[in-house]
Amino acid sequence: MKVLITGGAGFLGRRLAAKLLERGTLKGTDNKDARIDEIVLVDIVQGAPFADKRVRIIVGDIGDPDFLKGTIDANTDSIFHLAAIVSGQAEADFDLGMRINIDASRHLLEICRSLGHRPKVVFASSVAVYGGDLPAVVLDTTTITPQSSYGTQKAVVEHFVNDYTRKGFIDGRVLRLPTISVRPGRPNAAASSFASSIIREPLNGEMAICPVSADTRLWLLSPQTVIESLIFGHDIEAEAFGRNRNVNLPGLSLTIHEMVSALERVAGPRIVERIHWESDPRIERLVLTWPGQLDTAKAHALGFPRDENFELVIRQHVRDELGGRRDFV
Amino acid sequence: MKVLITGGAGFLGRRLAAKLLERGTLKGTDNKDARIDEIVLVDIVQGAPFADKRVRIIVGDIGDPDFLKGTIDANTDSIFHLAAIVSGQAEADFDLGMRINIDASRHLLEICRSLGHRPKVVFASSVAVYGGDLPAVVLDTTTITPQSSYGTQKAVVEHFVNDYTRKGFIDGRVLRLPTISVRPGRPNAAASSFASSIIREPLNGEMAICPVSADTRLWLLSPQTVIESLIFGHDIEAEAFGRNRNVNLPGLSLTIHEMVSALERVAGPRIVERIHWESDPRIERLVLTWPGQLDTAKAHALGFPRDENFELVIRQHVRDELGGRRDFV
Repeated sequence: MKVLITGGAGFLGRRLAAKLLERGTLKGTDNKDARIDEIVLVDIVQGAPFADKRVRIIVGDIGDPDFLKGTIDANTDSIFHLAAIVSGQAEADFDLGMRINIDASRHLLEICRSLGHRPKVVFASSVAVYGGDLPAVVLDTTTITPQSSYGTQKAVVEHFVNDYTRKGFIDGRVLRLPTISVRPGRPNAAASSFASSIIREPLNGEMAICPVSADTRLWLLSPQTVIESLIFGHDIEAEAFGRNRNVNLPGLSLTIHEMVSALERVAGPRIVERIHWESDPRIERLVLTWPGQLDTAKAHALGFPRDENFELVIRQHVRDELGGRRDFV
Repeated sequence: MKVLITGGAGFLGRRLAAKLLERGTLKGTDNKDARIDEIVLVDIVQGAPFADKRVRIIVGDIGDPDFLKGTIDANTDSIFHLAAIVSGQAEADFDLGMRINIDASRHLLEICRSLGHRPKVVFASSVAVYGGDLPAVVLDTTTITPQSSYGTQKAVVEHFVNDYTRKGFIDGRVLRLPTISVRPGRPNAAASSFASSIIREPLNGEMAICPVSADTRLWLLSPQTVIESLIFGHDIEAEAFGRNRNVNLPGLSLTIHEMVSALERVAGPRIVERIHWESDPRIERLVLTWPGQLDTAKAHALGFPRDENFELVIRQHVRDELGGRRDFV
């Protein structure tokens, strides 16, 4: 089978590809294990090469339907659609967000439809579809009234994925991702970028700015578990989803204060002094509309993986990204 | 002020125009009464002419962005966007539904954005945005997981209207319409068309087919009250809507059996013998996914009008459409 990953040069795309290469199989459209023959990584930027012949990297703009068409063929059985204009950027550049987050996604679904063999499409959505007057704990049945263009655009594509699935054009799966922490690398234009920076930078001996108050509650998921979730969501039998293909992924509900306390327990009190508190209304306006706690009953019933606690998530980051070094204090 | 009505040759569009002509004013963007100087009725079909100089009828395809652009100008202050490919047709012709229900709506919003003066846009959505595993009584906070392409397309445009409003491009208002009954005229391609036929045709001495079972519960609104609601929704102060612009309109919750009983009370027992019961899976599949009862708390708080009971709705139909004649038995 052939697997396509959009946003394939990104942090999640590369991790997912590495994990798929390691596994070597995914459940095919017949629910049986199928050997992965090729993984196509599509992105607007050139990622580092993979030392594996099964990987093909294609650089281009998925907003261009002709380009996108060239990355998908009759052998493309599974697509992980991760590419997106992130929250901060989609808010700053409305048209770009619409072009990539909506139009490119719709082109992707149309191309899949034209294949005729009902490929699996795993769509990375976000808890940013929620917003407005939310209950303290968001349920699977809570309505989505996003308060950002990013959340709006994700919500719209969720609807498309569900209807294309219902019509039999694709076999879609919508995973609403929590805020990922601890993301490796550098800060990006996501409004939630700080949720990784405040852990990652201090561990690297750098200063980090926290733009929201310490009592802000976030819904968090580790990089390791989100990759497992994407694969799990791909492999689940279609029927298990019920009347819609949306799943709120399990997360950890922590205030920033609790995140920082966990960092202190892992790395000591001196580390957390590297966090500077500097309110940023532009970031707050987006982040404060997202839910900080969800009851993810559907995901639990389906058996999605979950993180145990945030301290372990930080230790995982230290192990995977810092080579386990413990000289940060 | 200049008012645009899409779907202006349709039953709702014409009634709305007539009502607006009679009123002569609408609340402008400054919340003050403004005189209606022109009402532009746009539709794909040529409607009967209006004997009023304020009305301009333009025939064309709103799916064509250039045509649509020609119907809107710097003086267009208010738009009632009623045009749609109805449920049954959108299900049968997926691409046509996407083209008109989504693409044309998005072009409309983009044209409004380009005007720069933040026109009011009243969008006629539908309870068809609900579907799937619904509670017995749908709340304003119940999530939308539509089970039809029509409902999906309405849901998507709701998201656009909300985000364009949040961004300050338009002043949008989303009214989720119940099934309208009793619609005058002939049956159309809406899956809910029978909800009017089973009342209207027997009163006209004709046979009607009811394609769903007698215990099917519908959420109903009269033509008169839906027109009042559209105007009320237009005139409400923007701030009153809160964090989203969606409103589930108040309706009457009746089973088909209760509808038929009301008809019998108005017109006698012989009349209801003109209803034939003939299950149609294509219709049932759509209609049974729609909610039959809603708790429309937000609409009540905002003061939206409501129907008293269905018997009065039928009497209203007899008065308005049948000239009050009572020789139907």
